[in-house]
Amino acid sequence: PDIRDQLMRTPALHPRAPRDARFASVLVTNGDIDHIAGLLILREKQGFDLLATREIHDVLAANPLFAALDPAHVARRAVALGAPVEIAPGLTAELFPVPGKVPLYMEGETVDTELEGEQTVGVRLSAGGRDVFYIPGCAAMTPALADRPHGAALVLFDGTVWRNDEMPRLGVGAKTGARMGHMAMDGERGSIAAFAGLDVARKVYIHLNNTNPVWRPDSAERRAVEAAGWTVAMDGADYALD
Amino acid sequence: PDIRDQLMRTPALHPRAPRDARFASVLVTNGDIDHIAGLLILREKQGFDLLATREIHDVLAANPLFAALDPAHVARRAVALGAPVEIAPGLTAELFPVPGKVPLYMEGETVDTELEGEQTVGVRLSAGGRDVFYIPGCAAMTPALADRPHGAALVLFDGTVWRNDEMPRLGVGAKTGARMGHMAMDGERGSIAAFAGLDVARKVYIHLNNTNPVWRPDSAERRAVEAAGWTVAMDGADYALD
Repeated sequence: PDIRDQLMRTPALHPRAPRDARFASVLVTNGDIDHIAGLLILREKQGFDLLATREIHDVLAANPLFAALDPAHVARRAVALGAPVEIAPGLTAELFPVPGKVPLYMEGETVDTELEGEQTVGVRLSAGGRDVFYIPGCAAMTPALADRPHGAALVLFDGTVWRNDEMPRLGVGAKTGARMGHMAMDGERGSIAAFAGLDVARKVYIHLNNTNPVWRPDSAERRAVEAAGWTVAMDGADYALD
Repeated sequence: PDIRDQLMRTPALHPRAPRDARFASVLVTNGDIDHIAGLLILREKQGFDLLATREIHDVLAANPLFAALDPAHVARRAVALGAPVEIAPGLTAELFPVPGKVPLYMEGETVDTELEGEQTVGVRLSAGGRDVFYIPGCAAMTPALADRPHGAALVLFDGTVWRNDEMPRLGVGAKTGARMGHMAMDGERGSIAAFAGLDVARKVYIHLNNTNPVWRPDSAERRAVEAAGWTVAMDGADYALD
């Protein structure tokens, strides 16, 4: 346990996921650092199923660091796209491809930022006849993707940037949202417009970059998002389905 | 920046090392997760020198994840044992071998827990004629090691466990301190006894496991440590040398 304690010593590090939390499985939808680094600070000897696509498992396997997840306790299970799996009693998860890209640290000279395959996936969680969608990264709304959440009780969706060129405009980086594999909220091809006609009971933005003005509760952008029927997630939020 | 923001979104995550901190270099003394995972949550495009032994650099290089440290901004410099390097103007660092072991995730069937080489090192920091020693992991006090801190203004030393069998006794794990590559504070071969005769102005325990009773300010063990001239470090502590 000592090796993780350096990171976890501050109770504030993970205030809503204490190290004594028990869970049956961890489902990873992307191989990038923000999606997988948390695996390194779990309590040693904690048993769970680690679910991901084969390609994301390959990314983990290529990093010896993750051998800290003792195979005697952590079962790595590959999940095929389009094949629902039961991840807890009565709760199934189905993975589907979402336009995105390989993790930053695997980028080569050229990067396909709207790759559809096993590197970036969304999840349909189903229980008691209701569906929840978790899509933390999405580079573009394709017709196939727009068809999926029909009738969903809740969609948690990529809210990385408000505008595609937000970071260059603020002078904090050269990358656009598109370059990072994320569609903007605003604009003709943004997520607000993309979801405007979809039959979804609740829409929540997650995965906001720190440059996104929607963070500010008093911003015009926050008002615009809320006027369009969205809310903005907070760390540790719980959602009760009607 | 988005990929680290998931981890850094909570300001409390790293309250004393905000992402806008600027530093010239990062010196890594061990390849285990608690020593290197922090590299994954630094701000992208932040420039610094990454200093470590060749073997620890090899550990980092074996994990593609660390390619997130853009070589255009982060220079990886190998530091030889016993060769002081200037890490900031007027401040030199010298690495020396300390008994320890390879990182947990690189352990094979058998583990040499008192390996001396480039996998676990201590640091002598020198400036203005004064020396500070940083030794976060140490499996045993060897005569060579005991000779080093003579006359030091400050020693920051491995305080992982109070007793070697602390974790098995508490029922929270099978491993002893020795198995993890750490000497205990207490006992004939413990660090309190090892430092009792050494000429060191200030002695501070760092890297405490959460099972160490010294954490509790009102514990008998804390009193024993303080009676022996040690203090216990806290996150974000500053030390002014006399």
